[in-house]
Amino acid sequence: MSTERIPFERLVEAIETVLVEAGASPEVAGILALNHAGCERDGALSHGVFRVSQYAETLRSGYLDSVAEPRVERVSSSYLRVDAAGGIAQLALSRARDEISRAVEEQGVAVVAIRDSQHHSALWPDLEPFADAGYVAVTAVTGGEPTVAPAGAHRAVLSTNPFAFAMPIEGAPHLIADFATSSMSYGDLTLAAQAGRSVPVGTGVDAAGGETTDPRAIVDGGVLLPFGGHKGAMLSMMVELLASALTGGDFSFEAQRDKPGGAHSTRTGQFLLVIDPDRGASTPFAGRASRLVQALRDAGMDRMPADHRYRTRAEAETLGIPVTPAIRELLDAAD
Amino acid sequence: MSTERIPFERLVEAIETVLVEAGASPEVAGILALNHAGCERDGALSHGVFRVSQYAETLRSGYLDSVAEPRVERVSSSYLRVDAAGGIAQLALSRARDEISRAVEEQGVAVVAIRDSQHHSALWPDLEPFADAGYVAVTAVTGGEPTVAPAGAHRAVLSTNPFAFAMPIEGAPHLIADFATSSMSYGDLTLAAQAGRSVPVGTGVDAAGGETTDPRAIVDGGVLLPFGGHKGAMLSMMVELLASALTGGDFSFEAQRDKPGGAHSTRTGQFLLVIDPDRGASTPFAGRASRLVQALRDAGMDRMPADHRYRTRAEAETLGIPVTPAIRELLDAAD
Repeated sequence: MSTERIPFERLVEAIETVLVEAGASPEVAGILALNHAGCERDGALSHGVFRVSQYAETLRSGYLDSVAEPRVERVSSSYLRVDAAGGIAQLALSRARDEISRAVEEQGVAVVAIRDSQHHSALWPDLEPFADAGYVAVTAVTGGEPTVAPAGAHRAVLSTNPFAFAMPIEGAPHLIADFATSSMSYGDLTLAAQAGRSVPVGTGVDAAGGETTDPRAIVDGGVLLPFGGHKGAMLSMMVELLASALTGGDFSFEAQRDKPGGAHSTRTGQFLLVIDPDRGASTPFAGRASRLVQALRDAGMDRMPADHRYRTRAEAETLGIPVTPAIRELLDAAD
Repeated sequence: MSTERIPFERLVEAIETVLVEAGASPEVAGILALNHAGCERDGALSHGVFRVSQYAETLRSGYLDSVAEPRVERVSSSYLRVDAAGGIAQLALSRARDEISRAVEEQGVAVVAIRDSQHHSALWPDLEPFADAGYVAVTAVTGGEPTVAPAGAHRAVLSTNPFAFAMPIEGAPHLIADFATSSMSYGDLTLAAQAGRSVPVGTGVDAAGGETTDPRAIVDGGVLLPFGGHKGAMLSMMVELLASALTGGDFSFEAQRDKPGGAHSTRTGQFLLVIDPDRGASTPFAGRASRLVQALRDAGMDRMPADHRYRTRAEAETLGIPVTPAIRELLDAAD
């Protein structure tokens, strides 16, 4: 049986329709639709159509301000401060984009501190345009619910705190890494619990603080652990400090998701750094970077970060996006 | 039996004497002496007196240019490019320090690309002065010998590629993390092999690519692995790209340590980012950061990065630095 497939544009339109119905402005709906249809197209299903209902729900609940007007302040030639005003981080970033480009063109670097946003998507769509322009970009987002405890702690203080970077590579797709600083994303943990699958030792601990391979024991009163022991924990702490303390967003442990419509709901922070790498060296960066990638491939590293996404994207561009049950439901809702 | 102890200043002087005898200029000897005596004082022995003979040897071999004159170029108000000219990275950083401070004062951010340097020390001494000034600093260094292979690769392409960051914390010592992106530093691996101690699964693989807990099997034809699986590998790749491709230093796989005195020896690269975090948010960073540290301590995380160093430093400041056999040897050599 062949899978039904639809063009990218049709998926974008359906997401837009659903989000506008949930209360999003056409601009916000358009930005999110491109983002989630892009994730779905690239096979990053956990941030694809799956997330649209989450955004629709937060719009309806009032967590996400549907008419938020971001405020962009350029505090120096290379430093921006953006108040997302309770709206989506992607709108704040979109409104700041021209100023960011100007900063990088003028100074070779832009530091961007986004506060009071909502960010439930992947980070790589935020970075890809900068790599397209030949820039190196690094980002970190915090403000999720606390679900992660570093070794020694008996309750969650950190969230899954994602970190991402993008590097242009000559003659090859950008090298874009985007990962939770926890052992696993909370979504994947929940899916494993629902499916009754076990998880590796080190994923998390149970309510008594003991090692477990049962994801349900982690979800029910336990906590996730950072990836890679204390080094991953330090990286997660770096994400909290850059994305929250430096921007003015909430720390994960300050998130109050139980107060819908209240004065104080989740206010995520996002730290973004964009650099023109060609100012640093006399040899163009992308060409040098391609030598490292080649050396790694020559040594047998057969899967680079994002390889899967690029392959799935190329297939979707030729054949269309496979219609999953979630997409079927979305298309029906949009009709 | 009580351990003999000496004052910090005496150790600094002895290191200076030994390095000047090995061919270092008084300025270089002074910078390195403060660095290594500081590491020893703080209990970071793997970068303390232990490293002095390594620097002395590279000075005598001609790898390390004893009269190198670093060249600092300010390519924009917030971007510096530093040619260490084959000398130590710490001299290059020292000569760039005023320009870095000016950039951060003016723009709130400085990107620093240091190339063609030698860096065998810890990274936290490079960052601590920036945290003293209330700044956030991040650094990455590459250019060591290739000893690390990401999963899938059958030979080493990456080095232990250290990464470090420093964050000022109100009312508490700075949060400074400094770690190899490999599972273990090569020094610790060698020490474990010499002592016949086993290492955890995941530290590295043997010459046949198989899992091992025998450090000798990793040293003899095997390779180290990045910490934390593919996420740590991505971080190590980020270090290579920022510290080498962006600066113009060598990639680790390009290092040619077997050519002493040749035209092309190890040229490490260092990427440094210094940010005034108070430009990003309306609440001072150090105060907010102290809330996160307190929340982590309250949750039971009883050891923060650098806690051990600060405790050992305080003790050394009161009682003096314990004289190890390595220090005894150094003092004798300096007499």
